[in-house]
Amino acid sequence: MLFLARMDVVFPESMTDETKADYQHREKAYSGELQRTGVLKGIWRVVGEYANYSIYDVEDNDELQTVLSGFPMFAYMNVKVTPLAKHPNATTDDFFDGNTIQE
Amino acid sequence: MLFLARMDVVFPESMTDETKADYQHREKAYSGELQRTGVLKGIWRVVGEYANYSIYDVEDNDELQTVLSGFPMFAYMNVKVTPLAKHPNATTDDFFDGNTIQE
Amino acid sequence: MLFLARMDVVFPESMTDETKADYQHREKAYSGELQRTGVLKGIWRVVGEYANYSIYDVEDNDELQTVLSGFPMFAYMNVKVTPLAKHPNATTDDFFDGNTIQE
Amino acid sequence: MLFLARMDVVFPESMTDETKADYQHREKAYSGELQRTGVLKGIWRVVGEYANYSIYDVEDNDELQTVLSGFPMFAYMNVKVTPLAKHPNATTDDFFDGNTIQE
Amino acid sequence: MLFLARMDVVFPESMTDETKADYQHREKAYSGELQRTGVLKGIWRVVGEYANYSIYDVEDNDELQTVLSGFPMFAYMNVKVTPLAKHPNATTDDFFDGNTIQE
Amino acid sequence: MLFLARMDVVFPESMTDETKADYQHREKAYSGELQRTGVLKGIWRVVGEYANYSIYDVEDNDELQTVLSGFPMFAYMNVKVTPLAKHPNATTDDFFDGNTIQE
Amino acid sequence: MLFLARMDVVFPESMTDETKADYQHREKAYSGELQRTGVLKGIWRVVGEYANYSIYDVEDNDELQTVLSGFPMFAYMNVKVTPLAKHPNATTDDFFDGNTIQE
Amino acid sequence: MLFLARMDVVFPESMTDETKADYQHREKAYSGELQRTGVLKGIWRVVGEYANYSIYDVEDNDELQTVLSGFPMFAYMNVKVTPLAKHPNATTDDFFDGNTIQE
Amino acid sequence: MLFLARMDVVFPESMTDETKADYQHREKAYSGELQRTGVLKGIWRVVGEYANYSIYDVEDNDELQTVLSGFPMFAYMNVKVTPLAKHPNATTDDFFDGNTIQE
Amino acid sequence: MLFLARMDVVFPESMTDETKADYQHREKAYSGELQRTGVLKGIWRVVGEYANYSIYDVEDNDELQTVLSGFPMFAYMNVKVTPLAKHPNATTDDFFDGNTIQE
Repeated sequence: MLFLARMDVVFPESMTDETKADYQHREKAYSGELQRTGVLKGIWRVVGEYANYSIYDVEDNDELQTVLSGFPMFAYMNVKVTPLAKHPNATTDDFFDGNTIQE
Repeated sequence: MLFLARMDVVFPESMTDETKADYQHREKAYSGELQRTGVLKGIWRVVGEYANYSIYDVEDNDELQTVLSGFPMFAYMNVKVTPLAKHPNATTDDFFDGNTIQE
Repeated sequence: MLFLARMDVVFPESMTDETKADYQHREKAYSGELQRTGVLKGIWRVVGEYANYSIYDVEDNDELQTVLSGFPMFAYMNVKVTPLAKHPNATTDDFFDGNTIQE
Repeated sequence: MLFLARMDVVFPESMTDETKADYQHREKAYSGELQRTGVLKGIWRVVGEYANYSIYDVEDNDELQTVLSGFPMFAYMNVKVTPLAKHPNATTDDFFDGNTIQE
Repeated sequence: MLFLARMDVVFPESMTDETKADYQHREKAYSGELQRTGVLKGIWRVVGEYANYSIYDVEDNDELQTVLSGFPMFAYMNVKVTPLAKHPNATTDDFFDGNTIQE
Repeated sequence: MLFLARMDVVFPESMTDETKADYQHREKAYSGELQRTGVLKGIWRVVGEYANYSIYDVEDNDELQTVLSGFPMFAYMNVKVTPLAKHPNATTDDFFDGNTIQE
Repeated sequence: MLFLARMDVVFPESMTDETKADYQHREKAYSGELQRTGVLKGIWRVVGEYANYSIYDVEDNDELQTVLSGFPMFAYMNVKVTPLAKHPNATTDDFFDGNTIQE
Repeated sequence: MLFLARMDVVFPESMTDETKADYQHREKAYSGELQRTGVLKGIWRVVGEYANYSIYDVEDNDELQTVLSGFPMFAYMNVKVTPLAKHPNATTDDFFDGNTIQE
Repeated sequence: MLFLARMDVVFPESMTDETKADYQHREKAYSGELQRTGVLKGIWRVVGEYANYSIYDVEDNDELQTVLSGFPMFAYMNVKVTPLAKHPNATTDDFFDGNTIQE
Repeated sequence: MLFLARMDVVFPESMTDETKADYQHREKAYSGELQRTGVLKGIWRVVGEYANYSIYDVEDNDELQTVLSGFPMFAYMNVKVTPLAKHPNATTDDFFDGNTIQE
């Protein structure tokens, strides 16, 4: 079951560059783990903004809440979640499995 | 180069169900063709709304404009486009090729 | 898995009172059936507006989309869906089973 | 008489983790007490946000104001209240008593 | 128990002046009756807009919904309701009884 | 001449509880004086928010500006003012004189 | 006493050019009369929009409501009114009397 | 050439009353000079807000930018500029010269 | 003197394709003439929307109003105008003269 | 391929004037370099605001992200990017080459 999230990061003014770098380092590790386990199907930078769009594949809302609140930088994020369903015009049940292009 | 689009469909009050069905039929064919040619990487229904989020892979803005304005229902859509860039935490250059999960 | 929905109904100017009444009649039957089968956990009128807040218990996003798009008046509704998770301060896993008050 | 509330929590930058934890501890106790006395009929986490939707059963607006302003974290919350009335399609007067599903 | 409502009237383009006048006539009668029975404590025109702010004194949300939906022009109104509670700085329990000014 | 105001209070993070209490004490005195002199016709708490709706009876805009900017907490308020006129459906010229209910 | 108004005109789709021209003709006469009597102190086109900003000098809110609702095109206008007071940095009580520039 | 500006002032929490007073003193001098030289045609307080509407007469956009950015408190202002053109219903080319009222 | 405009086109539901094509034909001629005379410095399609961003070089606001209201489709456009001034980091007074790139 | 960006600068309250000046100095150098290399086709001040509209010519979204995030003041900017395509009414493929005016 897929959800689209838009995440905007806002660090407080008082945070040092060192602390920011540490957060970003831990964020990268957490994000990578979610990708490797197939929970985070895709993540992209919104051009010009400290923000991303990302797509999550989870069992239910509770798992999604656990996944999102586990981000090291969660306390500094504004997150908006959109539940996604299969589109009637979709030619596949899974756009991420590499089999979409059939010709 | 990827773009995220949110498309909201608003049919005019006077449109007959038959005309709507015809639009939807042609829309499905057009959308399917875009998927088969690798331009439309994914499309999902926004739950509860006559809307979708979709991701396009195009050469440039002019191609994207051609692709979007080619939708049979384009005149009845509100479309918002977000340019996407590679995210520093992404573990792959292509989330749609089926090779993302490495374990 | 629970979702909160806010539904706002906007009938077109040209719809006759008779047609509206027919829609409302079928809507009531559909809504009642969803309540009897435990999908629609609660529905309340937003005071002063032709709108409701309602809570759905479904297996996944696809089922929710099926349930919502099945409303007879769906084409005349603006629906906004919010995924709900268990709250850390909740004293029960199910607020609708009548066992919440423990004293 | 029911009211839906959406509560968004925003802690100030200067608050220590220890103070936050203390607030959350007292909040949980207060919330639990409201649930046990039947004032707080349900509370759910908005997925991805430090926010909840909650439903209150009170005698009047003054009681609701007393209940809401009594939350230990009230000074750090943005609260939006929506008065709820019986919906014409509701099959029960009380969705929380466990008797909704009749089949 | 008091509620503040803001009501904005939007008549459809196709409504004749005669029909509008008939609605306004019935609206005035209904509004007058609510004032005489003490339900509608005050009503004022928002300068420059086809809108009013009005204050209602009702027993509960269901009564308010009945009162508001009873307006002859209800189908052409956008209504936003705000629940009001006693203000800690209020010098009286009832601002409408003519006894507020004490000097 | 009446004006409706909505006032939202936002205290800065650094303000001590003692200072807040002092402001609130002076605010109460100022508000009470305005009520006694008939300038402030009514004031109500917006349920769940550190905000009020209040109605002022003044000679002109300059007097209203003087009254509003005289609030001890004015620097910490967001104030939105709406000019009110007599409503064509009003059954009285003064809803606050205690003579509205005629039956 | 001055008020700033922003007026946006929206004619219905079905109105003929002849009817529009008739409205505009009567509007011009009404507007001119307001200028000659000193009620309408100034009126300017918002560049690129079918809208104006205008400044009114009236005795009270009721007079302003009468003036605004008297515009022939009032039913097709969205009007937002802002009450204006004397600014502490103003060097004159009347910016429209031609005596502002003192050097 | 005229422009309408709305200016909202937001002082930072840490600014002392003395510094504020100094800014306001310099602001008054600057504003007065603009009025005397005929650049600032009018300025009014928005009732209830730390904001003004003001009208500027300049040669071009660059001059307006110079004028606005020259305000001592410019760094603490949110400014929104609206270009104004002659209105077809205006009975004069200059509403500020004292010759508008012709009767 | 430059202005940025964003123009969104909304044709009424009842307009025939033939009429639309006629408008677009006349629009193209008018736009081309503005480009040839150096008034319209640039115009670009907003990808995915029936909208453009365009930059105008005019003597004053009145000329801009004349230019914009002269568009054949002006009655079907929502136009938002932003006055532009020279940027302190600009390396040229005219970005459109082909001499910007100096290396 | 062109993109329009609107950039709003918000410096934190604690930043010294010296630091601001240093940022602005480095910003000017970076911006000038982008102009010399033909990436930044134009940049203009939004009159009255600490903001600009600027147009970028890049190969793809990733390059744009690199360019924008390279601004020294990027962490203090809110940036909104709009992808631009060729407009059907454009008389040239390049409005910046100095050859637009053909008469």
